[in-house]
Amino acid sequence: MSTKAIVTDPAAYHAAGVISNGPLLHISGQPGTLAGKTPSDGVSQIHLALLNLHRVIAAAGASPRDIVSLTLYVVNYDAANRLHPKPLQTFLAGHLPAVTVVPVPALAVPEWKYEIAATVAVPSPTVPRSLPSPTDADVDVLVIGAGLSGLAAAESVLQSGLSCLVLEGRDRVGGKTWTETLPSGTGVVDLGAAWINDTNQTEMIALARRAGVELIEQNTTGNCLLEQDKGPTVLFPYGQTPCITPQIQSELDNVREMCEADCQALSCESPTDPALDSLSFYAYLQSRNVSPAALATASVWTRAMLGQEPTDISALYFLNYCRSGGGLIQMRSDRRHGAQYLRVREGTQSFAQTMAGDLPTNTILFGERVDAILPSPRPGVVVLSRTGRAIRAKKVICSTPTPVLKTIQFHPPLPAKKQLLVDSFRYGYYTKVMLVFRSAWWVERGYCGLVQSFKGPASIYRDTGSPRDGKFVLTAFLAGESGRQWAREKDPRKREQALLRQLGRIYDEPEVPATEFVEALGHEWSEEELSGWGCPCPALPPGVLTLAGEALREPVGNVHFVGTETAAEWKGYMEGAVRSGRRGAREVVQGLNRSRL
Amino acid sequence: MSTKAIVTDPAAYHAAGVISNGPLLHISGQPGTLAGKTPSDGVSQIHLALLNLHRVIAAAGASPRDIVSLTLYVVNYDAANRLHPKPLQTFLAGHLPAVTVVPVPALAVPEWKYEIAATVAVPSPTVPRSLPSPTDADVDVLVIGAGLSGLAAAESVLQSGLSCLVLEGRDRVGGKTWTETLPSGTGVVDLGAAWINDTNQTEMIALARRAGVELIEQNTTGNCLLEQDKGPTVLFPYGQTPCITPQIQSELDNVREMCEADCQALSCESPTDPALDSLSFYAYLQSRNVSPAALATASVWTRAMLGQEPTDISALYFLNYCRSGGGLIQMRSDRRHGAQYLRVREGTQSFAQTMAGDLPTNTILFGERVDAILPSPRPGVVVLSRTGRAIRAKKVICSTPTPVLKTIQFHPPLPAKKQLLVDSFRYGYYTKVMLVFRSAWWVERGYCGLVQSFKGPASIYRDTGSPRDGKFVLTAFLAGESGRQWAREKDPRKREQALLRQLGRIYDEPEVPATEFVEALGHEWSEEELSGWGCPCPALPPGVLTLAGEALREPVGNVHFVGTETAAEWKGYMEGAVRSGRRGAREVVQGLNRSRL
Repeated sequence: MSTKAIVTDPAAYHAAGVISNGPLLHISGQPGTLAGKTPSDGVSQIHLALLNLHRVIAAAGASPRDIVSLTLYVVNYDAANRLHPKPLQTFLAGHLPAVTVVPVPALAVPEWKYEIAATVAVPSPTVPRSLPSPTDADVDVLVIGAGLSGLAAAESVLQSGLSCLVLEGRDRVGGKTWTETLPSGTGVVDLGAAWINDTNQTEMIALARRAGVELIEQNTTGNCLLEQDKGPTVLFPYGQTPCITPQIQSELDNVREMCEADCQALSCESPTDPALDSLSFYAYLQSRNVSPAALATASVWTRAMLGQEPTDISALYFLNYCRSGGGLIQMRSDRRHGAQYLRVREGTQSFAQTMAGDLPTNTILFGERVDAILPSPRPGVVVLSRTGRAIRAKKVICSTPTPVLKTIQFHPPLPAKKQLLVDSFRYGYYTKVMLVFRSAWWVERGYCGLVQSFKGPASIYRDTGSPRDGKFVLTAFLAGESGRQWAREKDPRKREQALLRQLGRIYDEPEVPATEFVEALGHEWSEEELSGWGCPCPALPPGVLTLAGEALREPVGNVHFVGTETAAEWKGYMEGAVRSGRRGAREVVQGLNRSRL
Repeated sequence: MSTKAIVTDPAAYHAAGVISNGPLLHISGQPGTLAGKTPSDGVSQIHLALLNLHRVIAAAGASPRDIVSLTLYVVNYDAANRLHPKPLQTFLAGHLPAVTVVPVPALAVPEWKYEIAATVAVPSPTVPRSLPSPTDADVDVLVIGAGLSGLAAAESVLQSGLSCLVLEGRDRVGGKTWTETLPSGTGVVDLGAAWINDTNQTEMIALARRAGVELIEQNTTGNCLLEQDKGPTVLFPYGQTPCITPQIQSELDNVREMCEADCQALSCESPTDPALDSLSFYAYLQSRNVSPAALATASVWTRAMLGQEPTDISALYFLNYCRSGGGLIQMRSDRRHGAQYLRVREGTQSFAQTMAGDLPTNTILFGERVDAILPSPRPGVVVLSRTGRAIRAKKVICSTPTPVLKTIQFHPPLPAKKQLLVDSFRYGYYTKVMLVFRSAWWVERGYCGLVQSFKGPASIYRDTGSPRDGKFVLTAFLAGESGRQWAREKDPRKREQALLRQLGRIYDEPEVPATEFVEALGHEWSEEELSGWGCPCPALPPGVLTLAGEALREPVGNVHFVGTETAAEWKGYMEGAVRSGRRGAREVVQGLNRSRL
């Protein structure tokens, strides 16, 4: 099978034509239904129609990249308010099939607003390459990735007495924890994960003690600010609901309580609720008739926590994500028990460095990106790296972020449900920029540094300084659509200035931020293949949990899957990563002990 | 070429996807037109659009089973009254391509209400298998099938001095005539064809004399009953029009006279009338503005005569079918000259048994189903049977019902028009159940036994007893949609009880039928491949006669086609079968004599 794009107008969004050569999969029009029900919300329907299409594609052993033509039928088409381009573009992920949009007066079933038919070029079954013989190494357990989950897994595997190797594609440990020293010499900043707590994050607090690091309480003393899309910036004490008007204040309390109750009602481990899963988080809020102000506030949550627009993410996925961190309120909290309670003075990469330092020498091989996982003639698998290394292992623990699995060839191919999950898990846009200042000018003015903005570019700011080091930092969270827009500007000076302008506007001090500014550090996780093109945690659009959620933690043959998004508790956090690594180690140790009997 | 269905939800009507591998036929949207005209009736347009699609498919050497995707465009789509599912399902005959229904505001031509586009996987040309050498036999004429048409053909061929063999798939002669002895020992019942007459059925009366059978006049003394869908059951003397109201009585007279006149205007041999052929019989009646009561009555005709719903059959085909039996009135008549005038005390299978008994020993080979008809190195063809027998013949007379031709491989393939006919000819649902009673309780109450019902399950009842044998029988005709529904119940007891309840209701004697009941016999012709999955005669949807009718009796190379549906006169009756057999024999004898000159 081969395809070739014919583009007559390179400026046009989609290719004008695609040549296919080989077997084709012809897919009937797929409506936006889940478990036989059709949500009334259009965007949710589009997500579900794409998912139903995706399911057929995966069942045929193909992927959305193999689509050659796609026809989208739309009822009540409104050219001025097109809901499909974003979910469709996200689904296609840069792939350009021949696309035709067809407005129609109705579809086969009155509730259906969208239907998607497609033709797909079916890839030839890949032939496993011949195995190098002899292999370069032979171990009980091979761990892919030396982030927190992979290192936790390797440590536990070795403790059980089994042999273990870790392949790491980067030249460092830590994965999405990465600590950089400030050029100004005033300490370090965390480009990735930054917060833990010492009550319900048992793995992290144990690691912190082991690493001997110093913990800094998040500053919540003083006032916070809320920048509205229109209207004045609102000042409110940390821990209270901003009072735009008493009416709106009560609306915000209500939406928070409603989401908290709905997320507490879910199972942490196996959330099941097709009705919730059929809706985007935004459609879920709308279906509960929340007010525009409450919608705006709740939209900040999916952005600040996952970089996702609330229209792009399943309500069930988001509520379960919150549930995994103890609930929406705990997940949003910067105080004791909260998700943003404690920072690490030495940087969070020390956790991985501590674990790595305790492993036997040469347990980790750096610069080894895994390319393929093949069946082994003896029980187990053979893992091939891009440098040509071949390692036989009885069991593999894959700790890469789920989207990275797309870059690894599996023989035999992953089961359809697992593949659906792999192809559906996506990061939102999420970049932290650490703005270093000469002074904590916000503290001097009575603020704790926490800012929310409906306007952007940054959705959230938090104080991440270390006063005793003379380090004064505000971290800007560029997340979701406004963050993505900010990132289109490639000049780092202009990027910085946009943030300094926003701060000047919010604090009503147009000059101070720019005057006090020293330097800015950040990292574009979205451009890094080994992080799965994003941070902190990939998320799912509507319906996937219902159709394929069971494949999340299920091993495939001798390959086991860990990583923070596979955790039942503290998904998206370092705690979840470590817990998932321990779970993966338990699975392989039990499996190998059983097979020894 | 290969195809493979990818079904993610087995409960869904259509397959979610179909993989094709090999050449594809891309077919432009086919409208429901015939000979450049578009009927205004929606159902007729669907039939014609499917036919136009079918024509392109057949021209490419493919069949509807090879469709991989189909898009149906519908103007004025009404989800609550979808006209397309039944014709489409009948057309696809269990095949499941990827189907998309697209409601549209209009199509290219204002009259078009439906348009169907499709992609078809073109089958690889089948390679004729190598011929066994030497062949098992070598004859002038091989006849396939030992029903009445095949036996009549064989008899006439042998009379001309040519050598002849008959291959019969069953272990008996008679085809769709089949006589069973009653367990109660009171005589026989005919599970298939039952009636002849002694005036215009010259072949049958000659055969009856030759067989020495005793003929029983159909009982038409006494009253008939009409069960309405709503309203009281109406009593009327045999031969008169039931008088629901004088107004309705005149409407029924009018519709009968109109159809009679329209059918008498047609050629028996080669009916040609694209306007009539473009309409279903139902749409034809509607286009003549007949009343609801007349529509209901006329609907019973297509059910009782062919097991077809009037929406499923071409008006031209049905009127020509009536014409072939001398007209609607003669065809419906149980009196002298009528189609249901005389029954055979010994059963109608005696006709075939008499003819078979007069053939030279070993002329008929039983249990030999024909599998393929191949070209012969010498002039003629080689016929392969499923048991592996290979017979060379100069000419073949194929007497199987037309739908059975689908199960025979032809090399070279049948011409496109013949294939279109073969794939389009279908039986309706038609089962007779003979209900045996202890007494002729209906005669005692002044009835002749003829009952019509708009309600079902049976559409018609007729007295088929033989009083001198102490055999008292009512035959229920389960036909069309209400018959099909009745047949969904698989328990024979419950099936019987449904009929006894219907009789009790109609005769206003709730207890009598059940009390007098002895036993019931019937046969599901729709489950029998060798009868072409039905009885008594296959029929055509709109348009096929116009596009491919000429292929009905036209030989293909050295293969000639007979069978009751190929008869010009008395289609669907034993008379038509015998006449067609004689005609086939004439064709081959003339052909072989010509080639001898």
